[in-house]
Amino acid sequence: MITASIRTIGDEILIGQIVDTNSAAISRELQQIGVKVRYMVSIGDDRQEILDDLGKCLDDTDIVIVTGGLGPTRDDITKEALCALSGSGGYRESAEQMAVNERILSARHIPMLETNRAQALVPDRCEVLLNELGTAPGMFFSALGKSGKSVLYSLPGVPFEALGLLPKVVESIRSHFALEEISHRTILTFGIPESELAEQIRSWEDALPASMHLAYLPNPTLGVRLRLTQVGGSHCDFEPQVAQLKEILGDAIYGEGEDSLQHAIGQLLLKQGKTVSAAESCTGGRISALFTSVSGCSAYYKGSVTSYANEVKMGVLGVRESTLKAHGAVSEETVIEMARGVLQKLDTDYSVVSSGIAGPGGGTPQKPVGMAWLATAYRNEKGEISVTTKKVQFRSSREINIERFASSALNLLRLKILENR
Amino acid sequence: MITASIRTIGDEILIGQIVDTNSAAISRELQQIGVKVRYMVSIGDDRQEILDDLGKCLDDTDIVIVTGGLGPTRDDITKEALCALSGSGGYRESAEQMAVNERILSARHIPMLETNRAQALVPDRCEVLLNELGTAPGMFFSALGKSGKSVLYSLPGVPFEALGLLPKVVESIRSHFALEEISHRTILTFGIPESELAEQIRSWEDALPASMHLAYLPNPTLGVRLRLTQVGGSHCDFEPQVAQLKEILGDAIYGEGEDSLQHAIGQLLLKQGKTVSAAESCTGGRISALFTSVSGCSAYYKGSVTSYANEVKMGVLGVRESTLKAHGAVSEETVIEMARGVLQKLDTDYSVVSSGIAGPGGGTPQKPVGMAWLATAYRNEKGEISVTTKKVQFRSSREINIERFASSALNLLRLKILENR
Repeated sequence: MITASIRTIGDEILIGQIVDTNSAAISRELQQIGVKVRYMVSIGDDRQEILDDLGKCLDDTDIVIVTGGLGPTRDDITKEALCALSGSGGYRESAEQMAVNERILSARHIPMLETNRAQALVPDRCEVLLNELGTAPGMFFSALGKSGKSVLYSLPGVPFEALGLLPKVVESIRSHFALEEISHRTILTFGIPESELAEQIRSWEDALPASMHLAYLPNPTLGVRLRLTQVGGSHCDFEPQVAQLKEILGDAIYGEGEDSLQHAIGQLLLKQGKTVSAAESCTGGRISALFTSVSGCSAYYKGSVTSYANEVKMGVLGVRESTLKAHGAVSEETVIEMARGVLQKLDTDYSVVSSGIAGPGGGTPQKPVGMAWLATAYRNEKGEISVTTKKVQFRSSREINIERFASSALNLLRLKILENR
Repeated sequence: MITASIRTIGDEILIGQIVDTNSAAISRELQQIGVKVRYMVSIGDDRQEILDDLGKCLDDTDIVIVTGGLGPTRDDITKEALCALSGSGGYRESAEQMAVNERILSARHIPMLETNRAQALVPDRCEVLLNELGTAPGMFFSALGKSGKSVLYSLPGVPFEALGLLPKVVESIRSHFALEEISHRTILTFGIPESELAEQIRSWEDALPASMHLAYLPNPTLGVRLRLTQVGGSHCDFEPQVAQLKEILGDAIYGEGEDSLQHAIGQLLLKQGKTVSAAESCTGGRISALFTSVSGCSAYYKGSVTSYANEVKMGVLGVRESTLKAHGAVSEETVIEMARGVLQKLDTDYSVVSSGIAGPGGGTPQKPVGMAWLATAYRNEKGEISVTTKKVQFRSSREINIERFASSALNLLRLKILENR
């Protein structure tokens, strides 16, 4: 199997100022094409350490992918190391990258200084991977390492620039290595805990062909994703297995691949020609942020009210003072009134609502931290409103509790929408 | 200088399923006490690779911190490697951890199975760092590596459990190593780009004592943080330097240390006894999420309206149809009406508003992607409302643009509040 290592260069990561998200994104991409990532390493901006480390990686793995260390102020360290490592005699200017850089700088009204100019210089033994989103080019070096067959890709550290170059990296890897045909299919589920899910699909899993491998990928926002993998080109039809899985899990499946709850909901609403609104208490804007993360959501998402204060629950959403007094803000009675209220106020077909205790403070024995009431409402053609509620209890940090309240509320909404299919 | 390496064990990270946030958090903590992190490495759940890798690290660095690889199902691999590496003869049960585990499982109504019981087992040469937030104990091993003086800490992979054990790790490091006295002071600024800031404080920076080091830490949400560091116990008074810096930067400084814009705003509002609301378009709930990330915000934050649809801008916030028609949703005129509208609707003293184009689609030559109009309003005792607006232009991804719109809006609000000090 072709192996890879991912190296991140930069003091900002080593001192913890920045969390490295590039490595995970690159790794997912490599896995898709059947390349095994053996290590991820972050090293500082030190020429000798970079040289030692990259040299070792090129001996150990077939592919080394380096991100970072190419900013205008630090250019020299990483690029010098790559120059030495690749046995380049010096630098040459990439005319292509220079043209991009002139365009970018002029659009930003930044003069072309010597430091910007230097960014288009590359070691003469490298092949340039043109970066159209920034001023530091990607670079490709081959015939390295003790095998003489290892390759190295150097990408800029800015995440959207690095990700923008990934298709070129993948294409290049495919042309340099004889990769085994590998295929995946990922089925997305929500609402069934991992252990219970494993129980439900055990006999299906046991009956999978030997060439097929199943992985459980749990995530607080995405639910449990089930990824099927097959290596080798001949047996790549997942259809019968997926059909059986859909039979077993039914509406617990909300999509495939890179889908998300909020996107799946958007598709359902577009199909029904319906609209949605939200009223949030404990999720404090998170449900709304999920809706608006989908480009084009304005076709079905009209808006939301974060009703943190009870006055706003009453004044804007029309929750009755007597309900709040008798049952409290975190109660089934309150979320029902919130769901009706926001649906009417924002004049939508559906609504989705949260009220709970995200923590770390504010819990009581009756209403502990991590508990929330969720609700979703639908108004039919006759104007009749039906409301569905659900109580959830999580045990995570404030941040993850909010994340899980929000995605659980979206799933409740999704199931409500499916009732009208 | 005492050096450290941080090792993350787990296939989920290596395959990119999870982004490793533990390493950055641990690194920040180590840096505070003057320990230099040389490497961060992620390795898979493979016994031999773990053994090889940790062995090398213990030779190279004084401190090795390992996170992950301790879940009930995989316990054996990491723990076995640690057992072998530390020359332990076998395992013993940690009675303390077992008591915690019994309490946790019973609260969650989960029976104590053999796999749970095994979690309280530790190699006999280790010292237990009691984990009160989960079932996998932290472990400390000393007298390792070729120097015979290296130490290793093993922490659970779940971020809030790992972070919960960090104070114990720091205390242990302090007692095992003679660390140089190191002190920091971090001043938080917002609204001045890094290069301009460097220009403004250049002569102040040049005049810093030789023992004092300055670092610029830019961040889309936090602005540019200026961190002063001094090594050695004798010269640790930052007061004169900080006083001069405040003189130069004035209200661009919003706090120190771990403060945030939303927390600083909360403190100002509490002092004035005033309240705030928000109306969001392009930030789609992010401003609200920032307010509600501060525990106790209900004392001054009443809520928000995400008015994604123009109908909601009109119907809930009272923006005039003629304004939207003449100037569009992304305009100074519209954000002014939104700011007045939400302030009156939610009956607060202040309000803060955004309307812009987050991208990637939706831009025009006049209103390009990354552009937003922000506004903040204040209503005085006489009921008179004054509004301040600001136009911003960023060039990042949708996600980062939203982040920067939201924090820029908060900063505009902060400056408005400061007018009434």
